[in-house]
Amino acid sequence: LLKTGVLHPPGRGLLQAQEIQYMAPPLSDISGVTEGSSMRQRMEKFIVTLQAELCSALEEEEDPKYKFRVDRWTREEGGGGITCIIQDGHVFEKAGVGVSVVHGLIPPSAVAQMNARGKKLPEGQEMPFFACGISSVIHPRNPHVPTLHFNYRYFEVQESSGQTRWWFGGGCDLTPYYLDEEDAKNFHTTLKTACDKHNTKYYSKFKAWCDDYFRIKHRNISRGVGGIFFDDLDSDAEKCFQFVRSCGNAVIPSYLPIVRKNKDLGYGYDERQWQLIRRGHYAEFNLVYDRGTKFGLYTPGARYESILMSLPLNAKWEYMHSPAPGSKEYKLTEILKNPKEWV
Amino acid sequence: LLKTGVLHPPGRGLLQAQEIQYMAPPLSDISGVTEGSSMRQRMEKFIVTLQAELCSALEEEEDPKYKFRVDRWTREEGGGGITCIIQDGHVFEKAGVGVSVVHGLIPPSAVAQMNARGKKLPEGQEMPFFACGISSVIHPRNPHVPTLHFNYRYFEVQESSGQTRWWFGGGCDLTPYYLDEEDAKNFHTTLKTACDKHNTKYYSKFKAWCDDYFRIKHRNISRGVGGIFFDDLDSDAEKCFQFVRSCGNAVIPSYLPIVRKNKDLGYGYDERQWQLIRRGHYAEFNLVYDRGTKFGLYTPGARYESILMSLPLNAKWEYMHSPAPGSKEYKLTEILKNPKEWV
Repeated sequence: LLKTGVLHPPGRGLLQAQEIQYMAPPLSDISGVTEGSSMRQRMEKFIVTLQAELCSALEEEEDPKYKFRVDRWTREEGGGGITCIIQDGHVFEKAGVGVSVVHGLIPPSAVAQMNARGKKLPEGQEMPFFACGISSVIHPRNPHVPTLHFNYRYFEVQESSGQTRWWFGGGCDLTPYYLDEEDAKNFHTTLKTACDKHNTKYYSKFKAWCDDYFRIKHRNISRGVGGIFFDDLDSDAEKCFQFVRSCGNAVIPSYLPIVRKNKDLGYGYDERQWQLIRRGHYAEFNLVYDRGTKFGLYTPGARYESILMSLPLNAKWEYMHSPAPGSKEYKLTEILKNPKEWV
Repeated sequence: LLKTGVLHPPGRGLLQAQEIQYMAPPLSDISGVTEGSSMRQRMEKFIVTLQAELCSALEEEEDPKYKFRVDRWTREEGGGGITCIIQDGHVFEKAGVGVSVVHGLIPPSAVAQMNARGKKLPEGQEMPFFACGISSVIHPRNPHVPTLHFNYRYFEVQESSGQTRWWFGGGCDLTPYYLDEEDAKNFHTTLKTACDKHNTKYYSKFKAWCDDYFRIKHRNISRGVGGIFFDDLDSDAEKCFQFVRSCGNAVIPSYLPIVRKNKDLGYGYDERQWQLIRRGHYAEFNLVYDRGTKFGLYTPGARYESILMSLPLNAKWEYMHSPAPGSKEYKLTEILKNPKEWV
C-alpha cells in the first residue's frame, strides 16, 4: 500500500505523475495518464489524487494519533474502490473519503431511475457502464464545526447501437449545527469562484439545485446551508471535466479554514445534544431521500459499508424536539426553513 | 383528557363500555359501539382500548416517575390520532404507542403503491378512504430486553362505482440485542396460539411473511427474530376482525413477561454499544424499507413526529463493525442471517 507519507500540501500547483502518492494503488493503471488520455483515466487520476490531498489535509487538523484507515476493495462484477475513514477521532467523529471506479452491466431498474429524471436511455436492456467518483462526508466532533459533504462523479453508458453516453455530476454542501454567517458566506464564495471560472450562470443555477435537492421534505427544512449540486452535465467533455476539477479542488479551501477556525471552540452538553438531533436529520435525509444512497443500497452486491460511511457515528431521535424561540438552535432552524442567498 | 387512571389489568375479560378509559378522547364517538356497529367504529374502539391497556401495562414496569406523554392531534384533511410516548425513562429508553383514525381522499401515488402489491384498485382517481390502526415500537433501556414492534390496521376505500373495498393488515415482531432462545420461543408460541384459534395455517404463513418483510436487504440480515406479518386480509370481515383482535390482545402476554424477566439484568459499556449499533440497523430498516414509514413520510401534511416515533432515541453507525466470532453478539448475527423456526 502507498498510504505512507502523503506529504505535499494541497494547492501546490502542477505535479509530476511520479510525485503523486495515493491512499492505495488506484483501481486502473493510471501511471502514464496525460491530457490526451481517456476521460475514464483522467477522472480516476483526479479523484484518487484529490482523495489523498484531502485525507492529508484532514490528518493535519487531527490529533496525530488518529490516521485514516484505508480499505481498498474490489467488486466481483468489475472495478472497486478505496475507502478511507477516521472514526472516533479527536477532531473528526467520523470522516470518510471514498473513491470508486466500477464497471459492469447497468441493471434495468437503474436505467428506469435515470430515465425518471429525463435521461432517455433505452430501457429493458442491460447496458455496459463505467462510473467513477469521489464521495466524502466529514462529521467533526465539535458542534461548532459543520458537517461537509461532497461528491464528484463521471458516468459512461454504452448503448446497443455502440454509441457511448456520458455525463458528470456532483456537488458540495455544508451542514452547520450553529450558524456562523461568515463561514457560510466564505464557503459559498469559494464555490462560486470555482464555478465562475467556467460559466457565470453555474453558481446560481447549481446553488438553487442544491437547495432543492437537499431538502428533508417531511420536516420542510433543508439539510444544511447548501452549496452546489448538479447532474447530467454532458455538453463538452473537456469543459465539463475542467469544471468538475475546479469544484473538486475547491473542497479543501472552502472547508479547511472553517475546521481550523472552530475546532477548538468550547461547547457543552446542550450543544452536543443539538448536534446529535441534527445528525438524526442527516441520517433521515441520506436514508430516505438521497439518490446515491438509495441507488447503492438497492444494488445487489454493493459495498454497503462504503455507502453508509456517510452516516454519523452517533445520532439521536427525540420525539417533538423543538428549540426554544430565540435560541441559537432556533436561529439555525429558521435558516433551514428558508434557504437564503449567501453571496 | 381521560388519561388519568387506566386501572384495569389487561386480559380482564369483557368490559362494560362505560368502564373503559382511553389515553385521550377517541377520534369518533364510540360510546355506544356494539358488535352490531360498523367495522370502522368497532376497530377504533378496539385500538384505543388496546392502547390504554398497553400503556398501563408498560407504566407498571417503569419507574413511577416516568408516565406516558399523551398527544391527541387532528389532521386538516380529516381524522387524527393519539400518540403516547415515554422517552428517556428508566426501563424504556423510548416507548411509543400510537393510534390513528384518518379519512379523506387517497392520493393516486398511494393507490399505485397498493396496486404494486396486487391490490387492483382503479388508478388515476382520488378515492375516499378510511384508515385506522394502532402502531407501537418499544425500545427498552436494558440491552437484554428486546425491542418490540407491532401494528394492526383496518383500511376502507370507496370506489367510484360506490363499492367499498376493505382489508386488514398488521403484525408483531421482536428484535433482541442478545438472544434468549426461551424468550423467542415463548414470544412465537403466544403469537401462534392467537393465530391457531382462527386458522391453523395462519401462523406458519404469517411467520414466513414476517421473515421476508423485515429483511435489511443490503446487510442480508433480518431486523430481529421475527413474529407475524400479514396484509390484505379481506375474506370475511367478522372473522378478520376476530383474528386481528386476538393478535392485538396477544401483544401484552407475548412481550411483558420478557420485559419483566430481563429488565434488571446487569450490563456494561460493551452491551450498550452493541445495542446502539443494532439500533442503527433498526433505523436503517425503518427509513429505507418500511412501507408504512415511507408511505407516511411521502404523504404531504403527515404528522412526521408520530411516524418517526419508531426510531430509537440513540443510534450508532460504526464503519465495518463486526462482532468477534463466537461472541454473544456474533451468535445473534448468525440467527439474523438465517431465520429459524421457533415453535
